[in-house]
Amino acid sequence: MKIFPLCTGIGKIKILENPMRESRPSPFRPWREALTCSTVSRDSIRHGRNRNTPQGFLSRFVRDFRAKRRLISITFLILAHGPALAFDGILEKQVFEMPTYTTVGGKVLNKVRVGWESYGKLNKSGNNAILITHAFTGTSHAAGRYSTDDKRPGYWDSIIGSGKVIDTDKYFVISSDTLVNLNAHDPNVATTGPASINPATQKPYGMDFPLVTIRDFVNVQKALVESLGITSLQAVMGASMGALQAIEWANAYPEMAKRIIPVIGAGEVNAFLIAHLDIWTGPIRLDPKWNGGDYYDAEPPVDGIREAMKMTTLFARHWEWTDETFGRAWADNDKDPAAAFENKYKIQVALEDIARERSKNVDANHFLYLAKACQNFVAGHGASLAEGLAAIESPVLLIYAADDLLFFPEQVQQTKRLIEADGTPAEHVELTGKLGHVDGIASIEQAADAISGFLRK
Amino acid sequence: MKIFPLCTGIGKIKILENPMRESRPSPFRPWREALTCSTVSRDSIRHGRNRNTPQGFLSRFVRDFRAKRRLISITFLILAHGPALAFDGILEKQVFEMPTYTTVGGKVLNKVRVGWESYGKLNKSGNNAILITHAFTGTSHAAGRYSTDDKRPGYWDSIIGSGKVIDTDKYFVISSDTLVNLNAHDPNVATTGPASINPATQKPYGMDFPLVTIRDFVNVQKALVESLGITSLQAVMGASMGALQAIEWANAYPEMAKRIIPVIGAGEVNAFLIAHLDIWTGPIRLDPKWNGGDYYDAEPPVDGIREAMKMTTLFARHWEWTDETFGRAWADNDKDPAAAFENKYKIQVALEDIARERSKNVDANHFLYLAKACQNFVAGHGASLAEGLAAIESPVLLIYAADDLLFFPEQVQQTKRLIEADGTPAEHVELTGKLGHVDGIASIEQAADAISGFLRK
Repeated sequence: MKIFPLCTGIGKIKILENPMRESRPSPFRPWREALTCSTVSRDSIRHGRNRNTPQGFLSRFVRDFRAKRRLISITFLILAHGPALAFDGILEKQVFEMPTYTTVGGKVLNKVRVGWESYGKLNKSGNNAILITHAFTGTSHAAGRYSTDDKRPGYWDSIIGSGKVIDTDKYFVISSDTLVNLNAHDPNVATTGPASINPATQKPYGMDFPLVTIRDFVNVQKALVESLGITSLQAVMGASMGALQAIEWANAYPEMAKRIIPVIGAGEVNAFLIAHLDIWTGPIRLDPKWNGGDYYDAEPPVDGIREAMKMTTLFARHWEWTDETFGRAWADNDKDPAAAFENKYKIQVALEDIARERSKNVDANHFLYLAKACQNFVAGHGASLAEGLAAIESPVLLIYAADDLLFFPEQVQQTKRLIEADGTPAEHVELTGKLGHVDGIASIEQAADAISGFLRK
Repeated sequence: MKIFPLCTGIGKIKILENPMRESRPSPFRPWREALTCSTVSRDSIRHGRNRNTPQGFLSRFVRDFRAKRRLISITFLILAHGPALAFDGILEKQVFEMPTYTTVGGKVLNKVRVGWESYGKLNKSGNNAILITHAFTGTSHAAGRYSTDDKRPGYWDSIIGSGKVIDTDKYFVISSDTLVNLNAHDPNVATTGPASINPATQKPYGMDFPLVTIRDFVNVQKALVESLGITSLQAVMGASMGALQAIEWANAYPEMAKRIIPVIGAGEVNAFLIAHLDIWTGPIRLDPKWNGGDYYDAEPPVDGIREAMKMTTLFARHWEWTDETFGRAWADNDKDPAAAFENKYKIQVALEDIARERSKNVDANHFLYLAKACQNFVAGHGASLAEGLAAIESPVLLIYAADDLLFFPEQVQQTKRLIEADGTPAEHVELTGKLGHVDGIASIEQAADAISGFLRK
């Protein structure tokens, strides 16, 4: 397999602006760009010697009160954490581009782009990096905020940051969007997939996009991290589909992935999940607006996407959550659901609202491609799960949710047994909660000590 | 609430042929009609003194070799079981009709029809009956066969029959189709619902059919059993949606339901199941052929129904079943699912095949009405689950499946606690297996001793 890491100039990484992202004016933008680099040399990422240092911006930003306030807190952080500039939680999405990438299936894609973001600073040897891989409905936004008034931080912000379990004072944490990312229309996502413009036709690929696999996701990530000068990954950690990527990393590039932490995921997508994923795609395929995948010049199949997102929302959760949060409450106290078809229960309307919100940036074809990529996953993409997991030599910390209704604990335990069968160290943590699969995101702090200990080993 | 039990003549029950059923010639038809009665007096059901007794048919049927062979075995059964004629496993669907029925919601329906079948013989006092109530995707075909060459007996044939756990030598077992039964187009089902002809317009009701509840199902059943001269039910037993009916029977008519055996069901449809049912209806609503429920003059929404039936099939089962039965096997050994979108895994094709088969007789609107009836279920249809279950005074045997992913064991245990809170005797049996919810059907024999003991109490 031929992989072309991005290289537009010796020692230089060209970071492209995401054309899908709207320009958002922000008083901190220039300063953030300095921190996260619109154009930055490998050396500067390694040593923190950005030519546009925060110090260089001081004189310009003392005029801005908010910036001043910010700088005071930065100064405090610098003092608190010593000479290294601590990750302050504000970041900007970067874009990695490969001129060409050849898929596992042998198809050549031109101009492959994936978004990424990072927290912390790469050390001189390039060996203090941790890669975070994302879930089916997720993006590379694992931690931090895009602006000071950004209400919602990245999904694992509770464990990634300065002084946190995955300590950005120590590690350079990087997270990237996968190929065919679900949220193709999210301004903070860059991904290459069916919604992307095919350079050959100047039109979206649609269903002409080649099938890709979890291994392809990993291969593009490998090109990305190598392009940044990362020489080894202290860990690859990811939840759900992210766990599949972590496992694939250890199978494919054991010399690079020193440890893996698969969370709420297993060594393969089993028949039950293959069927789930098949069913999740049903509403999209049934929506006449899907039109065989050719809808980029018309209205997209929003109804089908919304139904599909209702499924990803419910099935990743648990009855304990729905019962406690909604019970049999009516959506409208004056409208008895037993009185009319249109009268609904609160859980129905909540699901619709969540699905509508989560659907906004979803591309229907990306949903189908991502589902297919997951269905096709078995560690190593070979004939045998046991062989695929036996190939893993890096220590493994498996974290699963006791009430997971997608990746059931027994399946994760089976994965563990197969990994450790040949002596590979494997440990596990069971998360408890009322959110089912989603406890892998929401309740990850329960595994804090185990993660710390595992990273120290 | 006004209920009109069918009464077309004093002491007479008019059994109508199901117009949806194709006429199937059978050498045993006249004889079976004599046994199960196209027109039969209450007295004859009670005492087995049918005016067209099997003996009366002897002279006519000695000409038919197969009939002769059959009669020999009947004679043997009579000798083996004493004077009572044992249920021989061959039956014919009956139809019960009510001139009018007023729903719980206050709507008057004319000419309400539901199919029913029975096994065994009602005693003189009319108090040896057991009512079997069916599941969401089920019908009244709980036991026996429609003909000697009928490959597949009723779903609980393993426990219902002569000498079986629910012994038809002792009990008159009756099972009826619900209103808005899913399989409206099954020739062996009679049900009134959106697909039925509205006598007022001579067209199918479609979405003009009134909403009905589990209590409505029970009310129609009550009218049916009363019309047969049944004075009390030794038990009401049902699986899944059938369990909801059993619970509702004990809540609504405690003097009549002496015992209830809810299997894989609970005292309410919780938020998780409300959401599941909402999602199951999604593909039907999305299928353009559904057309707002108005499709009776055109092609029905078969694609939507099939997707919905994939869901009812998978979600009622368990990963242990899919893993053991299908694993990650390809549907076609020459077609790698990773190579093309149209190449599938065996589980996908199996689900499609099962769903296609199960969809054949399904009416899309019936699906929506049945889902709504289930969503609206809480024991007693009042404001409180606790009150609805406290109203139950009849002894209860709850049977649940350990791996049920729809009615989780904890929910069934909660139902039990609420029933026995005021001293009502409640016991439970846990079924084990690899079929999840469906173990309530397939593995019911594990509860055989418990059922026997419970019926003896």
